[in-house]
Amino acid sequence: MKLTILGCYAATPRTFTNPTSQVLQINGHLFLIDCGEGTQVELRRNKIKFSRIKHIFISHLHGDHCFGLVGLISTFRLLNRETELHVYGPKGIKQIITLQLKLSKSWTNYPLYFHELESNEPELLFEDDKITVETIPLNHRIYTNGFLFKEKIGPRKLLIHEALNHNIDVSLYQSVKMGKDVISNEGKKIANRLVTEDPDPPKSYAFCSDTAYYPAIIPQIANTSVLYHESTFMEANEELAAPTKHSTAKQAALIAKEANVGKLILGHFSTRYNGIQGFQEEANSIFPEVELADDGKIFTF
Amino acid sequence: MKLTILGCYAATPRTFTNPTSQVLQINGHLFLIDCGEGTQVELRRNKIKFSRIKHIFISHLHGDHCFGLVGLISTFRLLNRETELHVYGPKGIKQIITLQLKLSKSWTNYPLYFHELESNEPELLFEDDKITVETIPLNHRIYTNGFLFKEKIGPRKLLIHEALNHNIDVSLYQSVKMGKDVISNEGKKIANRLVTEDPDPPKSYAFCSDTAYYPAIIPQIANTSVLYHESTFMEANEELAAPTKHSTAKQAALIAKEANVGKLILGHFSTRYNGIQGFQEEANSIFPEVELADDGKIFTF
Repeated sequence: MKLTILGCYAATPRTFTNPTSQVLQINGHLFLIDCGEGTQVELRRNKIKFSRIKHIFISHLHGDHCFGLVGLISTFRLLNRETELHVYGPKGIKQIITLQLKLSKSWTNYPLYFHELESNEPELLFEDDKITVETIPLNHRIYTNGFLFKEKIGPRKLLIHEALNHNIDVSLYQSVKMGKDVISNEGKKIANRLVTEDPDPPKSYAFCSDTAYYPAIIPQIANTSVLYHESTFMEANEELAAPTKHSTAKQAALIAKEANVGKLILGHFSTRYNGIQGFQEEANSIFPEVELADDGKIFTF
Repeated sequence: MKLTILGCYAATPRTFTNPTSQVLQINGHLFLIDCGEGTQVELRRNKIKFSRIKHIFISHLHGDHCFGLVGLISTFRLLNRETELHVYGPKGIKQIITLQLKLSKSWTNYPLYFHELESNEPELLFEDDKITVETIPLNHRIYTNGFLFKEKIGPRKLLIHEALNHNIDVSLYQSVKMGKDVISNEGKKIANRLVTEDPDPPKSYAFCSDTAYYPAIIPQIANTSVLYHESTFMEANEELAAPTKHSTAKQAALIAKEANVGKLILGHFSTRYNGIQGFQEEANSIFPEVELADDGKIFTF
């Protein structure tokens, strides 16, 4: 998995900071998560091929997470896109986009599908043979979902020298990888554990922004490889976090710790602070594996 | 008048070129004309004070002229704006903005007024004691207006030494400036022309984008000090200009010549060309006073 942060600052776009958007590369997919104003320019800056984006996930309808969407959809049209595009987001997103396309008489010449969300329970949004994407209902001022991207458990790993030792026919290797016991060329039953080992543990990525401190998400994101959790404020401004339903760095770290995630990435920083290093220090007092998002930063895991 | 070009390129925002937006400073007003995606960042880059913008004029609802509007309106709210904002634009613009503010539960805390346009005749949009702003109906694929900003003719200039020579009482100076003949302290009637001279000719600025070659605008913009006219294409691509209802540099120059304007500024350049110098050369073959817009460029006149 490769995560490219296009923007990770709260509220308004500024000369050197961008609102929320990120691209997750996973098993051949390029998933765009949120799309604040200016996202299409950041995609260009980061040399991400527009045509490879086929799924866009919008967490909520606050402007810093979606005002770049209509522009991106329009630019796809101008670039003569033909491949279909799927947009997943809160109910209302279809009306916002289609109204603007209609009034500008600029309907897309490629298939555009909206998948509107309104459930307060996790929903499966996408599945293929290797991954799933599901919503993580969050707690913000308006209806908001995070997104959980999970690899499926792969086939068992064939230990080729053991398979040869046990004289297993090549035609049975696929069954062995599927975990089955097989009969060797000598007619002996070979237990699967003798010729395979566990597959790599599946990786997973949870995007949780924007949200108040919300322990209800912990069971769903438990043991996730990487958690991106918003930390708009630091603990010194906790009085701002609660009423605006945002989190502090400490609260994000508490969620990471309780959910036993592999790594916590902090983002959605308020621009009121001089630099973002303080967020890391605060979170590290609770949880060791903390990294800071920043515009243009790439995480590989 | 001071004109700051925030963006002057056609179609999609890119890393180093911005879609249409400009700020006209005239008699104490800061008028924002069009508002493509990224305009709020360009306003910051050009250090233009957000709170001084009270009137925004939107030519048409193609994205490269208006997709930055909802973000700017939202940012004004986040900056705790209190002064009212007037938005002038095609019918539908109010629905586009209010739908998004409603769905994000982010209604403005300052007064926001929409003035929706649908007439095909010039309309007076704004007037105070020094200036007027009126629409210039254009010819594009969707309903589009240019905007004509005109200073009113000022009072006549008092020739103070002549007023003293003719022994005119100070209390009459205001009447003299208004063009009236007055009676001197000796009881003599003093003809106005003896103690005044003509005021400076009023300046005017016409913004015409986007539009096909459309000579119907010539009477309205005749003798304008400065005309900004779109020139999306050069004459070699005239076959693209006609069906998309855009103009070539040559066509813009023909309009400038026929309308006898003081200066032509070309903009809304297609990004298909290597550089924009060719636009100037092409227009100069028709009309001498041509300048090229460019992002961040300032014109004072």
